Amino acid sequence: MVAMNFLAKDASADYILTGSWGKKAVKEAKKSGNVNIAATMADGGFTRVPQPDELKLDPRAAYVHITTNETIEGVEWQREPETGGVPLFADASSDILSHPIPVDKYAMIYAGAQKNMGPSGVTLVIVRDDLLKRIPDGLHTMLDYRTHVENKSLYNTPNTWGIYIINLVCQWLKDKGGLEGMQRENEAKAQLLYDAIDATDFYRGHADADSRSIMNVTFRLPSEELEKKFAAEATAQGLDGLKGHRSVGGIRASIYNALPHESVEALVAFMKEFEKKNG
Amino acid sequence: MVAMNFLAKDASADYILTGSWGKKAVKEAKKSGNVNIAATMADGGFTRVPQPDELKLDPRAAYVHITTNETIEGVEWQREPETGGVPLFADASSDILSHPIPVDKYAMIYAGAQKNMGPSGVTLVIVRDDLLKRIPDGLHTMLDYRTHVENKSLYNTPNTWGIYIINLVCQWLKDKGGLEGMQRENEAKAQLLYDAIDATDFYRGHADADSRSIMNVTFRLPSEELEKKFAAEATAQGLDGLKGHRSVGGIRASIYNALPHESVEALVAFMKEFEKKNG
Repeated sequence: MVAMNFLAKDASADYILTGSWGKKAVKEAKKSGNVNIAATMADGGFTRVPQPDELKLDPRAAYVHITTNETIEGVEWQREPETGGVPLFADASSDILSHPIPVDKYAMIYAGAQKNMGPSGVTLVIVRDDLLKRIPDGLHTMLDYRTHVENKSLYNTPNTWGIYIINLVCQWLKDKGGLEGMQRENEAKAQLLYDAIDATDFYRGHADADSRSIMNVTFRLPSEELEKKFAAEATAQGLDGLKGHRSVGGIRASIYNALPHESVEALVAFMKEFEKKNG
Repeated sequence: MVAMNFLAKDASADYILTGSWGKKAVKEAKKSGNVNIAATMADGGFTRVPQPDELKLDPRAAYVHITTNETIEGVEWQREPETGGVPLFADASSDILSHPIPVDKYAMIYAGAQKNMGPSGVTLVIVRDDLLKRIPDGLHTMLDYRTHVENKSLYNTPNTWGIYIINLVCQWLKDKGGLEGMQRENEAKAQLLYDAIDATDFYRGHADADSRSIMNVTFRLPSEELEKKFAAEATAQGLDGLKGHRSVGGIRASIYNALPHESVEALVAFMKEFEKKNG
């Protein structure tokens, strides 16, 4: 919907690629208009976000699009890129509500609920009022962001149960000390894991230190056989879902808001034990 | 999505209008291609489905679209119209699973879950395989029915909780004797209400007898003041949601699958009492 609403046929938008979801966003955007890949980290296997001097931004771009956290590669922006006044758009599906964000730096944020916000089947959209004027007429009613703004997201019956649960999750977040409190917990969990990875050559982190995700910790073992064995034995011990995405392999620990600190401690203990036996 | 996938820019589709949802469907279809209103019951205030000889069908139409049950007007098709081989498409949102339907008469059925199937936020789509060949290339991925067919509705994470509940509802339906059993219950509920309406001149049914909905029973009272009073006093007695849709006024009793027979009995008792006091 982003490109449908904000990328006219004869216009161009900048996309910065730091992983698989960014590539999917480009595929959709190209159906609406022109795309300029302002930077892609594909060559290094998507291990980091680009440096400012690596960005080939188009000053006339309709917007600059980033994926704040790439779940498959475990690469996360630590701060927003400078866009020189061009509206910054973000797919924040996998790290929204994991830490405070400077909302005023973004012209638009969209995020699926299913990582940190609540059940699948709800998408949160934050869009700056002045952008609504850019939306072309003739879009199908449900695909025009103005429909949802004008009808307070109630043009048709939405996913009421999902929205109700998101409200409960937001109350839970407040009780935890808000996004600052959640950030402290998430950083502590991630630190524990990255420390375990860095403490040995047996495990190798996928992402560069300055681009490491606090949501998806990705790492490799000395061989694919050991990775398979690692995932299988972990599953047997109740540590499930550690197999990396089939498109990149390796190991991926997704440690979203809902995952307690103790689960990461259990994983770290397992990692040490596994290395002792197989290292 | 229907017109986007199946109505090419230079093609035309037939729409039969028996109420408000049909009008909305036309509005969307016109954004994709040409629409021929094969029949509209607007003149009579949408009180019935058309007779076969009232249909001005185009033999070259891409499809014929009907709304099997119009929730706002309380008008329901009792049997499918003959389309002379043109694919029959139906928005069955408000009466699906209320009674058995001859699925093979339809080329496509779509239905929001939120009336009889389960929670809001899920849409069921049944589409005949051979129609998929008609879908043009270039649609956005999630708006192309082929994406959902090819990925077994799992291209992205769907509304998992909603789908889970729909499964439970289907099991509940089986326990009730399937759609045949459900139909018996629904017809008994509707009969009770229509009998109460027909027993007096105080209440006047909106829909013609041969087009009456077994899901939404719509009727009028002698004046709008009495209708307001009726709805307010009913609400006070725990019989809520009886005010007709703001676009048509009157009284509407929605008696979907989930509504027990006793609720309709309570409404009928209230109706008799109300007439005694105000008739």
